[in-house]
Amino acid sequence: MGGDHGPSVVASGVALALKLVAPDVRFLLHGDEKALGQEFARRGELAARVEIRPAERVVGMDEKPAQAMRRGKGSSMWNAVESVKTGEAAAAVSAGNTGALMAISKLVLRMSADLDRPPLVVGLPTPRGVTTFLDVGANVDCDAERLVEFAILGEAFHRASYGIARPTVGLLNVGSEEMKGHEEVRQAHAILREGRFDLDYRGFVEGDDLTGGAVNVIVTDGFTGNVALKAMEGAAHFMRSELRAAMTADWMANLGALLARRGLKAFRERISPPPAAPLLGLNGIVVKCHGGATDRDIAQSIQVAATLAQSDFAAEIERNMRKLPAALADSGPPSVDGAAE
Amino acid sequence: MGGDHGPSVVASGVALALKLVAPDVRFLLHGDEKALGQEFARRGELAARVEIRPAERVVGMDEKPAQAMRRGKGSSMWNAVESVKTGEAAAAVSAGNTGALMAISKLVLRMSADLDRPPLVVGLPTPRGVTTFLDVGANVDCDAERLVEFAILGEAFHRASYGIARPTVGLLNVGSEEMKGHEEVRQAHAILREGRFDLDYRGFVEGDDLTGGAVNVIVTDGFTGNVALKAMEGAAHFMRSELRAAMTADWMANLGALLARRGLKAFRERISPPPAAPLLGLNGIVVKCHGGATDRDIAQSIQVAATLAQSDFAAEIERNMRKLPAALADSGPPSVDGAAE
Repeated sequence: MGGDHGPSVVASGVALALKLVAPDVRFLLHGDEKALGQEFARRGELAARVEIRPAERVVGMDEKPAQAMRRGKGSSMWNAVESVKTGEAAAAVSAGNTGALMAISKLVLRMSADLDRPPLVVGLPTPRGVTTFLDVGANVDCDAERLVEFAILGEAFHRASYGIARPTVGLLNVGSEEMKGHEEVRQAHAILREGRFDLDYRGFVEGDDLTGGAVNVIVTDGFTGNVALKAMEGAAHFMRSELRAAMTADWMANLGALLARRGLKAFRERISPPPAAPLLGLNGIVVKCHGGATDRDIAQSIQVAATLAQSDFAAEIERNMRKLPAALADSGPPSVDGAAE
Repeated sequence: MGGDHGPSVVASGVALALKLVAPDVRFLLHGDEKALGQEFARRGELAARVEIRPAERVVGMDEKPAQAMRRGKGSSMWNAVESVKTGEAAAAVSAGNTGALMAISKLVLRMSADLDRPPLVVGLPTPRGVTTFLDVGANVDCDAERLVEFAILGEAFHRASYGIARPTVGLLNVGSEEMKGHEEVRQAHAILREGRFDLDYRGFVEGDDLTGGAVNVIVTDGFTGNVALKAMEGAAHFMRSELRAAMTADWMANLGALLARRGLKAFRERISPPPAAPLLGLNGIVVKCHGGATDRDIAQSIQVAATLAQSDFAAEIERNMRKLPAALADSGPPSVDGAAE
């Protein structure tokens, strides 16, 4: 029922997804029976692989997470997450209220890692593919342990999502040689570089590596990640409008823009981050699709969820997480110049 | 003597600057007598307003700051900063080694604010003008007091630089309503919104406001600022190369790019941050020009230095700084939901 465009775009997203995922993937659609029934009547191809699960209510896009948690039981969002807990579904996908989805998922599925909440993950375009970047806003204060957990979660997610056998992982830091990073970052670096985990840690990276493709996965705290992501989005927005102004400045530019429009369109698509974000660190797979989703975005989010569900993702995370207590115990206090190498 | 292109570009930058600054502005050029003498011989217009000050040595672009401090005395960089201390010069400009310039400036001029080092400042383009953004890397760990100091320094700098009588100031934070910012940010917010300082504080802003122009001055710690700046630079670089690829993809795009090239050039210039960065918080004016400076960049840096020297900038900062101890004493511990309003 979620998203800015309601159930219609979700239903046509599912219809698109039928062609993208394996033929044995089936769907439970949670929501208002009448609204979903109408969508069904319009799309005959859904009947064979989709089942409607009526829900009493819907979590509003503006509802506060606390409110959604208290009053959420029986809502379409709650039921979708609950179906993952009961094992009836292998993954849940929602384009609804992000804060509510996070709160309900935590409550119903519980965190597997020692985190307050699932880190927010985005995929950023690079010349060579996609950088998995986390946390972009959920955990504002992060100690070294959390940063290491993000590395474990992000690495497994990247492998499952992009089919890269051994993704490389970097820790976001500042460039100044004299005073690299604060203590949490230096300590996480010390733990990760010991090589106790089954992941390819490459050390510190900087802000321009986010879209530069130096490593596959980049880890930071939710404050820095949120600011960096929004700074990039703002810069991209600014550049697009400046470019538009430049390309309509005179008749030659106008004609030029017309001739180049196919290239410019490809450019616009290339720089748009992917619409789907997993909620990591839960005992179960939940994928958030952004609120303004089109049917293509919904279909892509379903594809991400199906890929994760069919992967070894959860077991890989668990194996690395089990090594965490020993790694933390051995790491000791960070050296002041731990970053000098 | 500094910069990647050596004294020649500095001398021609000064020649350009002669036309940009008031006719009574005069120059001391510190450096190798012979090299500078040759530049003089080539540019007759310099003789009337420029004086050469021979220096024994030059700080290398790769020298470590600690080394530059120990061995820097008598270098052209040291002498330029020293001339500000003695009052012989009203401001110093260098395109040399940033770390060395910072270390020597601190040692010779001393900090006026209670900071470890001058915050690094950049000007970011926005649709309406320029955002002054600090600290982009010098002070990695910042308490509330430092963030307030950045606000005072940045505000005075913005007024002096851009002739805006009352610049607006924002504090960089994350967007999530549930957990806005860490303690340092919430406390700095509590101090600034009390209105004790002579500045127009507008509250929290987010990463996309950096190039959005919501406020004139945006304050953050050196870790977040460095990551955000480099993330934007990386995004801009990525978008430029994607655009280049898109515009050369086929013959129509090629022709389009050709026709639009004037607009694209204007676009490129618009998104380049200004070349000059002041070292704020010192007892004296020092302006850093980026290392790869052209003569136009040098001239622009000189213009910034002259503008600051002719402004009330230093006195304005001092007046606000004097209010800081009382504001800190009164602020008390931050409320947990201090950011909720």
